[in-house]
Amino acid sequence: MAIAAKIQTAIEKSSWIRKMFEEGGRLKAAHGAENVFDFSLGNPNVPPPDIFEKTLRDIIESGAARDHGYMPNTGYPFVRQAVAEYVGQEQAAGVAADDIIMTCGAAGALNATFKALLDPGDEVITPAPYFVEYNAYADNHGGVLKTAATHADFTLDLDALAAAVTERTKIILINSPNNPTGQIYDAASLSALGRLIAERSAALKRTIYLVSDEPYRKIVFDGARVPGIFTACPNSIIATSYSKDLSIPGERLGYIAVNPAIDDRKNLLAALALTNRILGFVNAPALMQRVVARLQGASVDVTEYDRKRKLLCKGLADCGYDFVTPPGAFYLFPKSPIPDDVAFVKTLQEELILVVPGTGFGGPGHFRISYCVDDGTITGAMPGFKRAIEKYR
Amino acid sequence: MAIAAKIQTAIEKSSWIRKMFEEGGRLKAAHGAENVFDFSLGNPNVPPPDIFEKTLRDIIESGAARDHGYMPNTGYPFVRQAVAEYVGQEQAAGVAADDIIMTCGAAGALNATFKALLDPGDEVITPAPYFVEYNAYADNHGGVLKTAATHADFTLDLDALAAAVTERTKIILINSPNNPTGQIYDAASLSALGRLIAERSAALKRTIYLVSDEPYRKIVFDGARVPGIFTACPNSIIATSYSKDLSIPGERLGYIAVNPAIDDRKNLLAALALTNRILGFVNAPALMQRVVARLQGASVDVTEYDRKRKLLCKGLADCGYDFVTPPGAFYLFPKSPIPDDVAFVKTLQEELILVVPGTGFGGPGHFRISYCVDDGTITGAMPGFKRAIEKYR
Repeated sequence: MAIAAKIQTAIEKSSWIRKMFEEGGRLKAAHGAENVFDFSLGNPNVPPPDIFEKTLRDIIESGAARDHGYMPNTGYPFVRQAVAEYVGQEQAAGVAADDIIMTCGAAGALNATFKALLDPGDEVITPAPYFVEYNAYADNHGGVLKTAATHADFTLDLDALAAAVTERTKIILINSPNNPTGQIYDAASLSALGRLIAERSAALKRTIYLVSDEPYRKIVFDGARVPGIFTACPNSIIATSYSKDLSIPGERLGYIAVNPAIDDRKNLLAALALTNRILGFVNAPALMQRVVARLQGASVDVTEYDRKRKLLCKGLADCGYDFVTPPGAFYLFPKSPIPDDVAFVKTLQEELILVVPGTGFGGPGHFRISYCVDDGTITGAMPGFKRAIEKYR
Repeated sequence: MAIAAKIQTAIEKSSWIRKMFEEGGRLKAAHGAENVFDFSLGNPNVPPPDIFEKTLRDIIESGAARDHGYMPNTGYPFVRQAVAEYVGQEQAAGVAADDIIMTCGAAGALNATFKALLDPGDEVITPAPYFVEYNAYADNHGGVLKTAATHADFTLDLDALAAAVTERTKIILINSPNNPTGQIYDAASLSALGRLIAERSAALKRTIYLVSDEPYRKIVFDGARVPGIFTACPNSIIATSYSKDLSIPGERLGYIAVNPAIDDRKNLLAALALTNRILGFVNAPALMQRVVARLQGASVDVTEYDRKRKLLCKGLADCGYDFVTPPGAFYLFPKSPIPDDVAFVKTLQEELILVVPGTGFGGPGHFRISYCVDDGTITGAMPGFKRAIEKYR
């Protein structure tokens, strides 16, 4: 065998996911892509807001982007300043340009953060269900991902989190609004989490960090708000991106925002500048940094996602599915009518409906519907969703 | 201590480089930036070719780039196809779109490649002097960088490379044209290297890969050509970028090209798609992929660099410096007039000249001049270069 053993194993372990995608491809080839209802991918389908295209054109036409050279590894100072002002308002905290590191998306932000913090064997705890790539992000840097259960409605279970903390815990990683559940963690539970972290850090004489992965922060419904984490927990770091705000995930633009009250702040900022560089990101893409600097607070039209959400929830409720109505993101995580979610996903495939088993997110007995799709895909799939659940009645 | 021990050590070990840069900053503050001759950074100063700006505008204005969503982790198929056709000609080999993975620059390409290949403790051998980030790139993935000496003119020393191979060698990493020496490895030495790799792989019953980091391939002078590696070595991989070709290093665009004759090809390609994803790159930036697809073979005006090179070589030769005239890249790596290159770099700082000690590149007794600077910086620095060398006569 020529490739790294760990990577070989990862390829083999992910083969069931690949097989599922291959089956999806086979169904599309056999029945025509337009006849298959594909809810498997989290690729935003709402177009970028007009202001994004306008800003991109303005920057190109004005000649403001003639310089595509290296800048500091942490990003252009004026971009970091613009982000710092926005995050400062969002988090009700004084945030300086120095506290911001521009990154290649939230995935880049998380990897740079984990590499800066994790010693071999250190543990990252995340509430489950969770975004499965976190396993790889922790393992990349010698860490180990551990999960803690959430309540039945996917809100934070503080007791489960407290029980999961050990002397090797370095990071508690949250994702709100959550992929795959769409749940948002409220201010009270974040305050309680902050207290838990403070207590355990003091007891273990070891800094435990709260890392918040929040690319769906602006995709919220029914007046929901995503509370800030900086006041709840001094040792906290935000890792996020513009991918969903602006529907530009292919452009790889995000940032790390470090709580100005964090322990050992200057050293940590130097560490993040170093890890962002040596992991090979070097810096976040230059042109898009200039664009997002002018788009602080901009967002796609969330009413589009809200309409799809309502259409989907109404349809599935009428079919008899059981689910928590998600206050954010663009995912729904219903209960599988049978305990074996992988088997139920296969039943849905017989109806030409593609979804992802909850098992893939540490949430067995559920499945994930990504509803960033055309309205027609949602309405068209409903008879199939109905037939599938009726098979088990 | 809160951050990872290894990162803390890396910060401390790099403190002498930081001090040097801080000293540079101090000199600029004290004497005015325009009075300091800064040859320390490898940031291309020749502007992108006009065709780059034109193509970027065309793509934006035509609406061809409205979709900024995820594409396959390996890149847009049409972009990979365009790159494959170009690399196929360059390497005189049949290269398919599948053999190309679009990456976040050469740094991203090297990290994805190392993660795909290295088991813990595996060795990467590189001829010295070498780009010092290679240490981090190998270590990121559990590997260990080892060096092999080159000849006095920085060409490949096959005996030294042969002696460096052990039962843990997984990769031989070359960089041609080289940073910091500007040297190019000729076709004969690459063929000999290919034979060496084949012999040792067979003897050790273990695939050894040749990885070629070649972002300076198009920055060559006096009719020099950089030979291909695909015919010289079947188990070979190119990791490169458009950063220097197009003067766009801030945009983070490059690719991996896998030799179609490589061992276990399909598995390796799957591994690279996986590592590019899980390291957090996810995919190369979308818009710039579209741009470079139309710019295969395009390059900055190399006559600009050539003029600077001649100006610098003539000036330093007149001062009495000893150096190998570099056939490529935009670096000169002269001998330090005294064995202690760090001390000589300090002597140059007294003359308000900033360069990097060869010790930082595994080439003690030398120093690196990055001549991607205004012509005036070169001519203006000559009296200082002269006074510095005369101090040691």
